[in-house]
Amino acid sequence: MPKVAVVMGSISDLSVVEPAIKTLKKFHIEIIAHVISAHRTPDLAHTFAAGAEEAGIEVIITAAGKAAHLGGVIAAYTTLPVIGIPVKSSTMDGLDSLLSIVQMPGGIPVATVAINGAENAAILAVQMLALKYPELSKKLKAYKADMVRSVQKADADLQTKIDEI
Amino acid sequence: MPKVAVVMGSISDLSVVEPAIKTLKKFHIEIIAHVISAHRTPDLAHTFAAGAEEAGIEVIITAAGKAAHLGGVIAAYTTLPVIGIPVKSSTMDGLDSLLSIVQMPGGIPVATVAINGAENAAILAVQMLALKYPELSKKLKAYKADMVRSVQKADADLQTKIDEI
Amino acid sequence: MPKVAVVMGSISDLSVVEPAIKTLKKFHIEIIAHVISAHRTPDLAHTFAAGAEEAGIEVIITAAGKAAHLGGVIAAYTTLPVIGIPVKSSTMDGLDSLLSIVQMPGGIPVATVAINGAENAAILAVQMLALKYPELSKKLKAYKADMVRSVQKADADLQTKIDEI
Amino acid sequence: MPKVAVVMGSISDLSVVEPAIKTLKKFHIEIIAHVISAHRTPDLAHTFAAGAEEAGIEVIITAAGKAAHLGGVIAAYTTLPVIGIPVKSSTMDGLDSLLSIVQMPGGIPVATVAINGAENAAILAVQMLALKYPELSKKLKAYKADMVRSVQKADADLQTKIDEI
Amino acid sequence: MPKVAVVMGSISDLSVVEPAIKTLKKFHIEIIAHVISAHRTPDLAHTFAAGAEEAGIEVIITAAGKAAHLGGVIAAYTTLPVIGIPVKSSTMDGLDSLLSIVQMPGGIPVATVAINGAENAAILAVQMLALKYPELSKKLKAYKADMVRSVQKADADLQTKIDEI
Amino acid sequence: MPKVAVVMGSISDLSVVEPAIKTLKKFHIEIIAHVISAHRTPDLAHTFAAGAEEAGIEVIITAAGKAAHLGGVIAAYTTLPVIGIPVKSSTMDGLDSLLSIVQMPGGIPVATVAINGAENAAILAVQMLALKYPELSKKLKAYKADMVRSVQKADADLQTKIDEI
Amino acid sequence: MPKVAVVMGSISDLSVVEPAIKTLKKFHIEIIAHVISAHRTPDLAHTFAAGAEEAGIEVIITAAGKAAHLGGVIAAYTTLPVIGIPVKSSTMDGLDSLLSIVQMPGGIPVATVAINGAENAAILAVQMLALKYPELSKKLKAYKADMVRSVQKADADLQTKIDEI
Amino acid sequence: MPKVAVVMGSISDLSVVEPAIKTLKKFHIEIIAHVISAHRTPDLAHTFAAGAEEAGIEVIITAAGKAAHLGGVIAAYTTLPVIGIPVKSSTMDGLDSLLSIVQMPGGIPVATVAINGAENAAILAVQMLALKYPELSKKLKAYKADMVRSVQKADADLQTKIDEI
Repeated sequence: MPKVAVVMGSISDLSVVEPAIKTLKKFHIEIIAHVISAHRTPDLAHTFAAGAEEAGIEVIITAAGKAAHLGGVIAAYTTLPVIGIPVKSSTMDGLDSLLSIVQMPGGIPVATVAINGAENAAILAVQMLALKYPELSKKLKAYKADMVRSVQKADADLQTKIDEI
Repeated sequence: MPKVAVVMGSISDLSVVEPAIKTLKKFHIEIIAHVISAHRTPDLAHTFAAGAEEAGIEVIITAAGKAAHLGGVIAAYTTLPVIGIPVKSSTMDGLDSLLSIVQMPGGIPVATVAINGAENAAILAVQMLALKYPELSKKLKAYKADMVRSVQKADADLQTKIDEI
Repeated sequence: MPKVAVVMGSISDLSVVEPAIKTLKKFHIEIIAHVISAHRTPDLAHTFAAGAEEAGIEVIITAAGKAAHLGGVIAAYTTLPVIGIPVKSSTMDGLDSLLSIVQMPGGIPVATVAINGAENAAILAVQMLALKYPELSKKLKAYKADMVRSVQKADADLQTKIDEI
Repeated sequence: MPKVAVVMGSISDLSVVEPAIKTLKKFHIEIIAHVISAHRTPDLAHTFAAGAEEAGIEVIITAAGKAAHLGGVIAAYTTLPVIGIPVKSSTMDGLDSLLSIVQMPGGIPVATVAINGAENAAILAVQMLALKYPELSKKLKAYKADMVRSVQKADADLQTKIDEI
Repeated sequence: MPKVAVVMGSISDLSVVEPAIKTLKKFHIEIIAHVISAHRTPDLAHTFAAGAEEAGIEVIITAAGKAAHLGGVIAAYTTLPVIGIPVKSSTMDGLDSLLSIVQMPGGIPVATVAINGAENAAILAVQMLALKYPELSKKLKAYKADMVRSVQKADADLQTKIDEI
Repeated sequence: MPKVAVVMGSISDLSVVEPAIKTLKKFHIEIIAHVISAHRTPDLAHTFAAGAEEAGIEVIITAAGKAAHLGGVIAAYTTLPVIGIPVKSSTMDGLDSLLSIVQMPGGIPVATVAINGAENAAILAVQMLALKYPELSKKLKAYKADMVRSVQKADADLQTKIDEI
Repeated sequence: MPKVAVVMGSISDLSVVEPAIKTLKKFHIEIIAHVISAHRTPDLAHTFAAGAEEAGIEVIITAAGKAAHLGGVIAAYTTLPVIGIPVKSSTMDGLDSLLSIVQMPGGIPVATVAINGAENAAILAVQMLALKYPELSKKLKAYKADMVRSVQKADADLQTKIDEI
Repeated sequence: MPKVAVVMGSISDLSVVEPAIKTLKKFHIEIIAHVISAHRTPDLAHTFAAGAEEAGIEVIITAAGKAAHLGGVIAAYTTLPVIGIPVKSSTMDGLDSLLSIVQMPGGIPVATVAINGAENAAILAVQMLALKYPELSKKLKAYKADMVRSVQKADADLQTKIDEI
C-alpha cells in the first residue's frame, strides 16, 4: 500500500491541509501526519526527513505559511519528492509563503501547488505514486471523469438559473 | 529506460530549458522534446498530452512564459505528473508566468518550480521516477553528495579570499 | 439578433458574471451561457470554441479565477473576439487571474477587462457588435447618456449632503 | 475598407506600437495614426475621440505608459471599441500602465492586451472588424494556420538542436 | 476667503472623502464639492476644470479608485494645483488607484497623498493656500501643536495601560 | 522672488533631481539646494526644516530612495508644503521609495509625484507658488501651450514615419 | 536589570505591540514604553532617542505602520540597536510598513522582524541582551525547549484528529 | 576580541557580502566566514549553528537569495542573534529573498536588513556587540560622525555643481 506523509508547520494549518488528507483517503493511500516546525523543532524535521524513505514513505506533502521553510528543510534531508502547499496567513495574502517555497535553489526542488491548494497536493502525490502503482492511474482517470460530470451538471443547472437573472 | 517529455511553449525558451535537458541526460533519462504552444497549436498540445502515457512518457516537464497556460493545458489531458517551469520574460519579472502556472484550480495540479528553475524541474522528475526505478534513487543520493562537496570546496576557497577583502 | 456566449470556469463565478448577463439583456442580445472548465473539461472547451462561429456566436465572454486559462484556451480554438473577466478569488486579490488572462502571447489576444469587471465585458461585447449592428450603436449612446444623468443626479444629491458633514 | 486608428501617448511609444501597425498592414486595414497625450493635449483627445466614428474609424487602438489614461480618456468620448496597450516604461515594469488601463470603472471598458502587446492589439482589432467584414475572418484563419506552421517548424528545428545539448 | 474644490469620481467615494471636508471646514476654507466622473462625464470634468480658476477655486482635491484618471483629467485642463486621493476599492488594495494617480507623465503633476488619505489632502491644500493667506499658516501651526498634545496624552494613557498587559 | 528648496538624501540622487532644478530655473525661481540625509544628518534636517520658513523658503522639494524618510522628516518640522520625489534605486524598482513617501500618516502630508518624477515636482511647486505670484500662473499656461505644440509636432512627424513601417 | 524601550507610533498600535511586552515580561526585562510619532512629535523622538543610552536603555523596539519612519528616525539619533515591527494597517497589507522599515540606507540599520511580528521583536531584543547578561541566554534556551514541547504536544493531538477527517 | 560569523548560501553571494566584511574589519571584529547552503549542506548548517556559541561566536550574519532559508535554519539551532541579508538574484528583484527572511514565525527571529544591505548587517552586529564591549559604542559614534562629515562634504560639493545645471 502506497504511503504519503503530510507534514504541517503548525496545528493551525490543519484546516488548510484537510482537503489533502481527504483526497488521499479517497485514493486509499496510507497517511502519516505530523506537526513539525522547521524552525522550532529542526531536529524533528531532520530526523523525520532523513528517516522517511526507510520508513516506507514515498512522497512528502508539506504545508507552511509566512517564511515557509518547511518544504525546503525537509527536501534538504531526503531525495523523495517533496510537495509544498503555501499557506495563506494573516498578512501578505500568501505571497510570502508562495515565494518562500517555490523559489528553491538548484538541486533541491519543492513541487509547489497553489496557495492553500491542498487538494492538488494530494492529487500530485497520487500522480507520482501512479508511476509505480498502476491501479492508482485508473483511479486518477475515474477522478478526472468525475470532474467532467460535475462540470456538466453545473452547466445543466446554469441553464435554468440563467433565465432568472 | 525511464522517459521524460520536455515541452516548451516557444523555441526562444530553449536556453531556459537547457539545464533541465542536461540534468536529465546526466541521469540517463530518455528525453522527448517538443515545441508546443498551448495557444497557437492547441491540437498538438491535446494530441501530445492525450497520447503521452501510451507513448511511454512518465513525467512531463513544461516551460512557458507570460500567461503561461502550457502546463495547465497539458495537465488537462493526462493524469501523468506535469511539472511547470515559469519562464521569466521581458516584463513582470516572471511573476505573471509563476502565478499562471502555480495557481491551478483543484483537481489538476502542475508541480511548479522556481522561475527559470529548469535544473530543479529535472531533479523533481527524477525524484518521481525514482519511486519506480530504484537505481535513480542511488544516483540522486550521489547527486546530493556532489552538491555537498561543491559547497565544501567553495567554503575552502572562501577562506583564502576572505583575507584579501 | 446578435448572439454572445458567456462562459464561466465554475458555477461559483456566476455571481461575478451576473452583471454581464443583465447588461447584455438590456441590449437585447441573445445569450448562450455555459460552465466550461479549461482544465477539468478541456474537450468541452475545444468543442464549444471550435463550433462557436458555426453556432452563430459572434463574441465570447469568459470569466475565470486563479490560473485563469479559460479565455486563452477558448481563444486558441476560434478567431472570434474573446473577452476575459479576471475573477477575484480567495487569495492574491485577483492579480493571479488578471496576469493569467491579460499577458497572452502574440497572435492570440484575450480582451481583458477589470478584475470582476463583468458589466464592462458586456459593454465591450456590445461595442464590438455595434460595428455590424448599427442599432446597438444608438443604444450605446443612450447608455452613455444615462450614465451622465446618473452622475448629475449624484452630484445634485451631494450638494445637500455636503452641509451635514 | 475597414479603418483603425492607432493613437500613442508619446512619440517614444512608437517602437512599442510598431508591431500593431505592421500587423494591421498585413490585413490591409486602413490606418490613421496619431500622437495624442491625454494630459498634455486633452482637447486633441476630445476632438479626435468625439469625431472618430464620423471619420469612419471603427476601432481605436491606444498605447500609453505609467499613469496611462489615454485609453480611458478616448473611451469616455466615443462608443467605438477602444483597445489599450500598456507600455512598459522605465519604472514599475509596466504594472502601473497595466492597472491604469485595465481597471476601468463600469460602463467605459478599455479592452486591454498584454504589456507591450501591440501585435495582439492589432489582431483583436481585426477580430472585431471580422464581425462585419467576412473576408477578414478568412484572413484570421490563415494567420492562425501560419502560426501552427511556424510552431511546427520550430519543433522540427528543436529535434536537431536537442542532441547537441 | 480661500476656496477649495473637492471632486470625487463617484458618490460612493464620499465616506472616504469626508475627512477632507471636515478638515477644510476646521480651517474655514470655502468648499465647492462635486461628483464628476472622468469617464462617464468627461464634458463636466472639462468644463469644471477649465473654469475652476475663473470661479475663484485655488486648489482642487480629487478622489477616485481603480483606474483613477480623475486627477489627471482635471490637471490636464488647469494650471491650479491638483491633489489626488487614491481610493481603496474592492480589489488590488488601492495599488491600482495609487499608481494611476501618482505615475503622471512629465508636465502634468497630481500631488498624491496616501491611499484613503483624505485628511492629508486637506492639510496639503491648506499648506498651499497658506503661502498666500498668512493666517492659515498660524492655524497650521496650531494644528501641529494639537497633534503634539494628542500624542502626549496617548503616551500618558499608555503608562497606565502598560502595567495591565 | 519666489524661493524653493531642493533637498536630496544623497549626492547620488542629483542626476534624478536635475530636471527639477532645470524646470525651476526656467520659471526664474530662486533655488536653495542641499544634500541632507534624514538618517545620517538628522540634526541638519531638523535645523533646515525648522528654519525654512524664516529663511524665506516657500516650498520644499525632497528626493530620496529606498526607505525614503526625508520628505516625512522635513514635513515633521515645518508647515510649508513638502513635495516628495521617490527615487528608483537598485532594488524594488522604486516601489519602496514610493510607499515610504506617499503613505504618510494623517496630519503630515508629503505631496508625492511619480518615481523619478523630478520635472513634475518642480511644476507642482510652481503651481503652488502661482497662488501667490500671479505672473507664475501666466508662465504655467505658456508651459502648457508649449507642451501642446510639442505633441502636435510629434504628431506631424509621425505622419511621415508611419508609411515607412 | 536589562532595560528595553518599546516605542509605538500611535496608541492604536498597542494591540499589535502587546505580545512584545508580554514576552519581555516573561524574561523579566525592565520595560520603558512610549507613544512617539516620528512625524507628529519629532522633538519627542529626538529627545527620547538621543537620551536613551544615558537613561540606561539598551535596546529599542519600535512599531509603526504605513510610511513607517519611526524606527529610522530613532536610529538616526542613537547607536543602540533599534528593532522595527512593521504594523499591518488598513491598506497595502503591511507591505508599505515593511519596505519603509527594512530598506534603510547604509550606516543606519533597523533590525526588521515580520509584519506584526511583535513576539519576535522581543525575542530578538533578549538575544542581543544575552550577549551581556548570560542568565538571559539560559532563559532563551528554556524558551526554545518550551517551543519544542509545544510542537510535540500539537503533533500528539494531531494523531487523534487525523482519523476523524 | 568580539567575534562575528558571516555565512553566505553560495560563493556567488560574496560580492554582496563584501561590504559587511569590510565594515566589520574597520571595527576590528574577528570574522569567521563560511559558505553553507541550508539546502545543499543542511548538516553543515546544523553543526555550525549548534556549535557557534561554544566557538565563541556572538552574532551570526547570514546572506542568501531566492527562497532564502539560511537565516531561519541557522536561527533554529542557536539562541545567538542572527542577522539576515536578502540577496537580490536574477528574478523577483529581491522580494522573494526579503519575504523568505523577514516573515519568520514567532519564537525564531531573524533580524532583517535591506536587500543587499550588507554594510548595515555589519553595523547592526556591532551595535549588538557594543552592549557588551563599550569601546565599540565609542567607535559607532565616531562612525556616525564620519557619516555626518561625508554628507556635509557632499552638500558643499553640491553648491558648486548646482550652478552648472
